[in-house]
Amino acid sequence: MDPSASSSSFAADQVARRAAVIARHLRDATGGTPYASSLLVPAACLHYSPPEASEKASFDSREMRRLMDGHDVEARDWLFRVMEESLLFCPRRRGGEKVFVAPDYNQTKEQQREATMRRIDYLLGRGVFDGWLTGRGPEAEMKRFAFFECLGIYDHSLAIKLGVHFFLWGAAIQFFGTKRHHDKWLKDTENYVVKGCFAMTELGHGSNVRGIETIATYDSNTEEFVINTPYESAQKYWIGGAAKHATHTIIFSQLHINGANQGVHAFIAQIRDADGNVCPNIRIADCGHKIGLNGVDNGRIWFDNLRVPRENLLNSVADVLPDGQYVSSIKDPDQRFAAFLAPLTSGRVNIAVNAVYISKVGLAIAVRYALTRRAFSVSPNGPEVLLLDYPSHQRRLLPLIAKTCAMSCAANFLKSLYVKRTPEAKKIIHIYSSALKATLTWHNMRTLQECREACGGQGLKTENRIGILKGEFDVQSTFEGDNNILMQQVSKALLGEYIAAQKRKKPFKGLGLEHMNDPCPVIPANLTSCTLRSITFQTDLFCLRERDLLNRFASEVSQYQNHGESKENAVNLSYQLAEELAGAFTERKILQTFMDNEMTLPAGPLKDVLGLLRSMYALICVEEDASFIRYGYLSLSNAAAVRKEVMKLCTDLRPHVLAVVSSFGIPDAFLSPIAFDWIEANSWSFLNTD
Amino acid sequence: MDPSASSSSFAADQVARRAAVIARHLRDATGGTPYASSLLVPAACLHYSPPEASEKASFDSREMRRLMDGHDVEARDWLFRVMEESLLFCPRRRGGEKVFVAPDYNQTKEQQREATMRRIDYLLGRGVFDGWLTGRGPEAEMKRFAFFECLGIYDHSLAIKLGVHFFLWGAAIQFFGTKRHHDKWLKDTENYVVKGCFAMTELGHGSNVRGIETIATYDSNTEEFVINTPYESAQKYWIGGAAKHATHTIIFSQLHINGANQGVHAFIAQIRDADGNVCPNIRIADCGHKIGLNGVDNGRIWFDNLRVPRENLLNSVADVLPDGQYVSSIKDPDQRFAAFLAPLTSGRVNIAVNAVYISKVGLAIAVRYALTRRAFSVSPNGPEVLLLDYPSHQRRLLPLIAKTCAMSCAANFLKSLYVKRTPEAKKIIHIYSSALKATLTWHNMRTLQECREACGGQGLKTENRIGILKGEFDVQSTFEGDNNILMQQVSKALLGEYIAAQKRKKPFKGLGLEHMNDPCPVIPANLTSCTLRSITFQTDLFCLRERDLLNRFASEVSQYQNHGESKENAVNLSYQLAEELAGAFTERKILQTFMDNEMTLPAGPLKDVLGLLRSMYALICVEEDASFIRYGYLSLSNAAAVRKEVMKLCTDLRPHVLAVVSSFGIPDAFLSPIAFDWIEANSWSFLNTD
Repeated sequence: MDPSASSSSFAADQVARRAAVIARHLRDATGGTPYASSLLVPAACLHYSPPEASEKASFDSREMRRLMDGHDVEARDWLFRVMEESLLFCPRRRGGEKVFVAPDYNQTKEQQREATMRRIDYLLGRGVFDGWLTGRGPEAEMKRFAFFECLGIYDHSLAIKLGVHFFLWGAAIQFFGTKRHHDKWLKDTENYVVKGCFAMTELGHGSNVRGIETIATYDSNTEEFVINTPYESAQKYWIGGAAKHATHTIIFSQLHINGANQGVHAFIAQIRDADGNVCPNIRIADCGHKIGLNGVDNGRIWFDNLRVPRENLLNSVADVLPDGQYVSSIKDPDQRFAAFLAPLTSGRVNIAVNAVYISKVGLAIAVRYALTRRAFSVSPNGPEVLLLDYPSHQRRLLPLIAKTCAMSCAANFLKSLYVKRTPEAKKIIHIYSSALKATLTWHNMRTLQECREACGGQGLKTENRIGILKGEFDVQSTFEGDNNILMQQVSKALLGEYIAAQKRKKPFKGLGLEHMNDPCPVIPANLTSCTLRSITFQTDLFCLRERDLLNRFASEVSQYQNHGESKENAVNLSYQLAEELAGAFTERKILQTFMDNEMTLPAGPLKDVLGLLRSMYALICVEEDASFIRYGYLSLSNAAAVRKEVMKLCTDLRPHVLAVVSSFGIPDAFLSPIAFDWIEANSWSFLNTD
Repeated sequence: MDPSASSSSFAADQVARRAAVIARHLRDATGGTPYASSLLVPAACLHYSPPEASEKASFDSREMRRLMDGHDVEARDWLFRVMEESLLFCPRRRGGEKVFVAPDYNQTKEQQREATMRRIDYLLGRGVFDGWLTGRGPEAEMKRFAFFECLGIYDHSLAIKLGVHFFLWGAAIQFFGTKRHHDKWLKDTENYVVKGCFAMTELGHGSNVRGIETIATYDSNTEEFVINTPYESAQKYWIGGAAKHATHTIIFSQLHINGANQGVHAFIAQIRDADGNVCPNIRIADCGHKIGLNGVDNGRIWFDNLRVPRENLLNSVADVLPDGQYVSSIKDPDQRFAAFLAPLTSGRVNIAVNAVYISKVGLAIAVRYALTRRAFSVSPNGPEVLLLDYPSHQRRLLPLIAKTCAMSCAANFLKSLYVKRTPEAKKIIHIYSSALKATLTWHNMRTLQECREACGGQGLKTENRIGILKGEFDVQSTFEGDNNILMQQVSKALLGEYIAAQKRKKPFKGLGLEHMNDPCPVIPANLTSCTLRSITFQTDLFCLRERDLLNRFASEVSQYQNHGESKENAVNLSYQLAEELAGAFTERKILQTFMDNEMTLPAGPLKDVLGLLRSMYALICVEEDASFIRYGYLSLSNAAAVRKEVMKLCTDLRPHVLAVVSSFGIPDAFLSPIAFDWIEANSWSFLNTD
């Protein structure tokens, strides 16, 4: 550092630098002070110190992980290792010993698609998909959920490409097909002998599936369906797998027989031969570059008098006899149509579940960075302050952590509900999967945005994951049902329950609405910290809100109807209450699943921390939803008490934060350089080890 | 469409299809009904109809554009044409006659960087940058702002690469340099004989510039500064232009003379020779792939005993004499340091201004799409409903349009303030540029997210712009000052004014705080629609909030101090009020600039629409900020009245929406396929015309 020294040769410089780095490492390792106290040295704060060195856990984060993951912890870890072991998953060394895996997003979409397909081939070879379609029973399904979550943490394209093949194409055959379809396709699908896609959405119709324009007409002479794309707006759109890899597809189409439209049905068709050539009577085009998911080959499909045999109609709900007679076990066309949307439910479950896991990735990275990055000092010449020791930074991240933990429990509840499904539970699953898909994906986007900003510019570097996850997962808010529409459907369903209960004059039953039968809860006039953190108070307050909003919504809709509006218009005009009600319903359910998990624990440090997180979840929901004061569920002074309590909870949770994000169970390799020694990861010495 | 027809040859099919498409076009052009009413045809709603056909403007949108753009309308249009005329801007035909320009984001970062540089060369040749550094006076600066806005609409990388060169490197020489630097560098910069970058941020210090660790030591023997990167955390980071193209840089460094640190100073250094080779004693590495701005070559720089001549110190604020004597016209080190941050102010102005323009792009696309896309019908067999005719869809987009118009006026105010700057106005410019940079960029991100979701999956296609703009502009929330920190600085400044006024016992003066001297406004007990839309009421309510929050913030900080906290800690602990206060201050200022513009208009349809937009801006701010009810500025019944009025304003604004987004003045080529005939743009016939 002698300013009068002349510059020596570059090579000698490099040696000297390397020696200095090593010397510093040795000093650090032996606990020596690296920097003498003088004007010419930087503040000690820039010395990287692993968060584990200063943050001590009060509870066993492995135990908490079992609770949050809910199931298949060892299977998850096995799959993480399977991915880490392959060069196809692009392991990159950054800094000392740390290796990180992540796709190369600097590739073109064409390259990313091939990389995704190669990863699938590898995973297939490792047996990851064994039993995904041929396995039966809740345990097999839960393990499949767990695997799907882990694959999604690596890359959303990987998950979606698998999801289309297994959960749309495969599930359509399972649910809509009968034995002949199962025998012919399921095993071959599981082994990737065929590659399936799912042609439902059209350019002109996405959420409104009932309006699709593709037409299948039955030809009894040849016992075939003739499928056509009658207009440009009927082209199949966004079909994952169609642009490049898929060999087969499910086609959703209006079914016309003898001039009558029997509504939307599903057919199997081959679209490519074994050499990858597009089959005759089919045209395919690319959907082009997207802001994420470029590893998925979304395509567009047109059908020109495409003929498929009668047997290719997926006929579990309805069938066409050789002579053209239409037969169905479900007489009501509305119910028949609803039956065709069943696989979307499993899609929504997957989306909701994956969203929580991605929020965990973002939070684990942002929290670890905030425990090692310092900025500004609060006293002259004092050390710079850790980001997470700023009250405002705690306020940004800690409520999101609490929400993520609560939503983890809700996601586990949803999976359990789904795998134990019965025909009677169909409506309940539809409502919960819609509510949680919307709520958990919105939460995910918000969490990633907050985490990205909390990491400053580092959050924008692709290698640090948070930023790129935003683009990759943005699609979640609108695919398999636009979130706003799903939430409106939830409110409409609740309204249906309300009207039915009124008409039947019977108590509410199901969907957790039983509290509507009890007397209206009373909120104490002056809320103490102790009350604010109590399960009874939190439950009462959430039930009070839900009850009142349901009453208000029903009353507003009925008022609009009294003024001559149709029921549909009346509901559309009451969108604000519909939105508030659906939110209240969902948050009450999430709180309940969190409490259910807390109850299973014996008294001890883990239960204490879970209690803090549950209170944070409850009170941040209260603080963020103005309806609590707007409709008077809380007095202004009680609302102010809630706000103060959130700050206190930030302070109380701060010592446990590292242990909580560790319990998310994301392996180091799936986090990113800024989650560890980011000074070393950025050092010149390690530049050429990539 | 005959179901019994056997499939003919593919070529014949193609001819038939083309003929059918042409026939349909002819029918449409002659006004015939394209579809007979039968079971086998789609609903007429899927026929694309340009929004102009049904939406009639009540006012002249060119007149409104003059108001929103504020200045240099013709110059903007000239520059748009300059970009449209060059193949370097990637014009692509989509559908009939429509051509759109946009960068190819499917390229690698290396390709995107070269494409950006080639576009700059072309623009240089067309004289776009003439006078950007050598021009003088407010008019030249305003035109430069306008050009920069237009370039940013094409691509953020293009804007940022220019911004680093002109507004950071160039402005640093202008502001920190003296005649010798101006003579040597400004003309060469304007002509791109040199390519500049700006090495301020380090790995360890971003927002906290004062803490940077790079050291420049003066060597009086050779009359040189010797610049070093003493630690890995001191490596220069995020330096735009450094990774590939820049030949020169400004280096921010601590200045050490005779063992004393004189604080942060700025130096000029060459980093590459004419052949693009990195100069001796400098090491450069790439910052890697990012979630946006991959057309900018961000790099990292290390200095190893780099020697620069004494004359390269930018010496407008302080100088070092040949013998090593340090001289400065500013004795206070804090003020000296502040002087070095001046160019960041111009950066913030640019960022704020560009953010509004990008919101306009997003909204123009989303509104045009919502006026042509239909989904679901509200009556059995009725036509599907235009997205924008759903009350909830109006509620998503219309308030954002009103905010964008209001912020347009605020951006114009900020530009005017900046170009007329005086030394006395420095603090005011700092406060307004901080407040508006944060508020307008947050608004931009939120607007783009809402617009993207409002367009469903189409919002994710790169060619439709909205989605990709999210990733490209995300950086705005944290660069040149983290938004949260900027807003905290605003509140701290307001607190300073408050304390000064108290101490001096003198009235408030400046920053629009004069209303604090008046009696506290009184809000009527029952708000009518007429009152809610009145300028007086809106002003009173916003001033009431600001006044009360400033009082509360000052009181809370002082309470914390009375309990023994340092002032810094007290402010940090009061972050919630600080956030609310800064928001209240900024929204009041934005409202005021909007009203100022409205006042300039004669009575007539344009003024009427501006009044609706202004009321929407005011009332949506009220609805979204719970502090109005939390602190009792509005009674619950008045708050409910505000909410109803927002719905009414949606209805009242609905007929004017197309004209308003047309007044944003974005040329068609810079919108996207979904803003026009998206059925034709996606048709098979036009697939191979790209």
